[in-house]
Amino acid sequence: MNGALALLRTAEGAGANICFANPGTTELPLVAALDRVPGIRPVLCLFEGGCSGSADGWARMTGRPALTLLHLGPGLANAAANLHNARRARSPILNVIGDHATRHLPHDPLLASDIERIAASVSDTVLRCSSGARVADTTARALEAALAPPGRPVALIVADDVQSEPSSAASTPPRTRPPARVPPETVERAARTLRAGRGAILVGRGGALGRGLEAAGRIAAATKARLFSETFAARLERGRSRPVAERFPYFPEQAQSALAGIRTLVLAGAREPVAFFGYPGRPSVLVPEGGSLRLAGPDEDVARALEDLADALDARQRATTDASPPEPTRGPLDPVRLGLVLAYHQPENAIIVDEGLSSAGPWFGASSGAPPHDVLALTGGAIGAGLPLATGAALACPDRRVIALQADGSGLYTLQSLWTQAREGTHVVTIVCANRSYRILQVELARAGHAEPGPAARAFTDLAGPAPDWVALARGFGVPATRVETSEELARALENAFREKGPHLVEALL
Amino acid sequence: MNGALALLRTAEGAGANICFANPGTTELPLVAALDRVPGIRPVLCLFEGGCSGSADGWARMTGRPALTLLHLGPGLANAAANLHNARRARSPILNVIGDHATRHLPHDPLLASDIERIAASVSDTVLRCSSGARVADTTARALEAALAPPGRPVALIVADDVQSEPSSAASTPPRTRPPARVPPETVERAARTLRAGRGAILVGRGGALGRGLEAAGRIAAATKARLFSETFAARLERGRSRPVAERFPYFPEQAQSALAGIRTLVLAGAREPVAFFGYPGRPSVLVPEGGSLRLAGPDEDVARALEDLADALDARQRATTDASPPEPTRGPLDPVRLGLVLAYHQPENAIIVDEGLSSAGPWFGASSGAPPHDVLALTGGAIGAGLPLATGAALACPDRRVIALQADGSGLYTLQSLWTQAREGTHVVTIVCANRSYRILQVELARAGHAEPGPAARAFTDLAGPAPDWVALARGFGVPATRVETSEELARALENAFREKGPHLVEALL
Repeated sequence: MNGALALLRTAEGAGANICFANPGTTELPLVAALDRVPGIRPVLCLFEGGCSGSADGWARMTGRPALTLLHLGPGLANAAANLHNARRARSPILNVIGDHATRHLPHDPLLASDIERIAASVSDTVLRCSSGARVADTTARALEAALAPPGRPVALIVADDVQSEPSSAASTPPRTRPPARVPPETVERAARTLRAGRGAILVGRGGALGRGLEAAGRIAAATKARLFSETFAARLERGRSRPVAERFPYFPEQAQSALAGIRTLVLAGAREPVAFFGYPGRPSVLVPEGGSLRLAGPDEDVARALEDLADALDARQRATTDASPPEPTRGPLDPVRLGLVLAYHQPENAIIVDEGLSSAGPWFGASSGAPPHDVLALTGGAIGAGLPLATGAALACPDRRVIALQADGSGLYTLQSLWTQAREGTHVVTIVCANRSYRILQVELARAGHAEPGPAARAFTDLAGPAPDWVALARGFGVPATRVETSEELARALENAFREKGPHLVEALL
Repeated sequence: MNGALALLRTAEGAGANICFANPGTTELPLVAALDRVPGIRPVLCLFEGGCSGSADGWARMTGRPALTLLHLGPGLANAAANLHNARRARSPILNVIGDHATRHLPHDPLLASDIERIAASVSDTVLRCSSGARVADTTARALEAALAPPGRPVALIVADDVQSEPSSAASTPPRTRPPARVPPETVERAARTLRAGRGAILVGRGGALGRGLEAAGRIAAATKARLFSETFAARLERGRSRPVAERFPYFPEQAQSALAGIRTLVLAGAREPVAFFGYPGRPSVLVPEGGSLRLAGPDEDVARALEDLADALDARQRATTDASPPEPTRGPLDPVRLGLVLAYHQPENAIIVDEGLSSAGPWFGASSGAPPHDVLALTGGAIGAGLPLATGAALACPDRRVIALQADGSGLYTLQSLWTQAREGTHVVTIVCANRSYRILQVELARAGHAEPGPAARAFTDLAGPAPDWVALARGFGVPATRVETSEELARALENAFREKGPHLVEALL
């Protein structure tokens, strides 16, 4: 066994059953070794931002570590923006980066760069395998770090020659500790706060899923607390027969208004909310007058804490919605009509990847009574996550429909992921919200007092000259595509897409 | 005047007349200020790898600093791979990165990351503007570092609020020192070495252009020294009426063979050659038995050193080629036929951006007698440079034809640059060498003994399932495109493309 095989077998033993890669010459022993590890599915991405974003989507849906295989510093740098999102999502990812052969590196070949430094910008844990004999142990340590609750991307650097060196057998799977249980005093303090009234709850991680969310719903109903989900949740379960959590507002003034009348915000698996950007005269930390109170941190057992809190409050009444999504209105598409059509037509158990940005808000509002579904959001704000996340989620859950609700400007960052969707036959339906501008930036320009932007400001926010043709782009990557302009056309296109297998793209002109 | 305007006016004063950008909310004061600086052309790129690669192309052709404007850490990270190439090309680039407002940053908003660390991985100089009043001075220092011979990318971080703060006037243009003259002893030593016979010369930077190259040709002719250009030159002038420099071979065994019979390699603006990758049993440093001798480093006045050396050797006889490119052969395209057709049809004074990788070698050989042209190569090996470089070079030289000789796998990394070409009406003709594989990696797999790769290795090196349709992709970005399969079709497509204005793409099936 060589270092490469020891690495992959160790990763496989920890449940890493997929490898998103764009390898180069310094990763060839790992590429060759993959052919001896059938438990890891090799998935080629045409750009490394696709690797890291897809790994994030896979890890969010499985809870298991996803592998990436990246070529040297530039390959890792290309993956970094979506690793930033994965870091904020707390997704377990093992990024394996090849390096030049040990004797070759000191000569500073052209492709050499400071891999450790790039890795440290997106990973708390950066390890390098010092020899073939140590590969299995170092890999196990990297996986242990990736899986320590609540999870994180880690970087594992392995030089070309080390991959080929003889190695000991694969390491046993890393020890992973379960998330810690929140102490009774903390639960009791939260119970007192909510009993006093005028409370609100902000759920994240285990609080946004299954048992935890269900308990949060009971607590909110029993204490009349307002229930919020994070503005950008790594994963949120919602829809019919689940509790309804409002999305915490994006702009600080909206958040201030939502928090008016609330005394304390109880945090269940979510960080204390911070405005996405700082604005003059607006607060950075978005909490009510009484501040926030942490029931459970992201690294703790959030679901259990919420169940304990529900017990302490004797909150037994299930509080789930039995609403249905409203009927779509007919006519030319805008974000409201688009949201209504999608909410009305989305199939049972869908996974919605939401990088719709300025176009997606109405869908969120309209879909609280849609069939049960998951939402994966842009956790770190680095645009270009949507199409890769959808690809990874679809590979993780082949029996579910994935819908990428995708802004056009951000979608163009990593459109190469469409090709991976075609190659792997993933059931992803991408809806491109084609407003042909960086609309959010136009909004921000107006907020900053530039109501009438000059030519430079227009050049940087307008995508219409020429308008990208998403139907052509999708077909260029092997994905069937349609353009729609009305509610009726969108409804028909979605019905067709959901009936068929494999990826589809619908360009919705807004 | 605010910080943003002071920054831009200072940059404009140093000759930075273009700004390749994909800004966000934290760069809006700079965006607004650009409308007050008509001497800087705003160019939107749909992905930051396009910004940095285009800035590199512009800087290589003008010698002046190009500006980029990037959004926070993720925007910079997306630009990093092509900044790696620019660092190896020694291109002066001022990367301006916005940051969160000073009071907001400590709250760790979702988009916050370690910008300094990312920047340091691709820039020797990383500066942050501490206040509006200091912006002009800090910008001038950054430009001074960028322009210090031979040039380099620098990073300048400016927080959102600092951009809006009152500022002093723009700083005077930075002092730049000319490259140092090589001392006479060094010239004399090189003269002695070459007089002794069995020498070779490797030219880079000023040795690969104009007067320097011309002197190198005379020296080679007078001393019967073999004349090499760098394997990956930032910029190389060649073609009819210029000296012919062979390209230094890529694989170490080819280099060893090219150096057989040579005693000493004289370096004129080039680094001592190092193999691109390390291979067992092959050397890393590729020099002849007698080693190398440095006439001039990249930071010195290489052209002057070569002229001094020619004088010392009394090498007066101009040694330029008056050959013509060979007639193309007819039939289905392969790299040889493609190279012949391009060499035969390329127009006077073209700029060839060579990211053709495994498909471009024959063109280089066939084109030494083509009309005079420049070649810009993949200096750092981080693929995805070609289309952005071509975009930047075309904006730098609007009266010249730019030809991107582009491998398909690498081209897919940054295909968004096609849109910028369409928007800006650049005269770029892209020839996609569509072998529908990562061919170089297949070659390397075979070299490493994996003659019959398994399914994983095939999955990672094959692009044919489904084959990307470059004609559709180009049209999707507003670039007219054609697919060709024979020499005759390629010749006709090139003739048509050269006759028209604006960008064209030709997908050449190999």
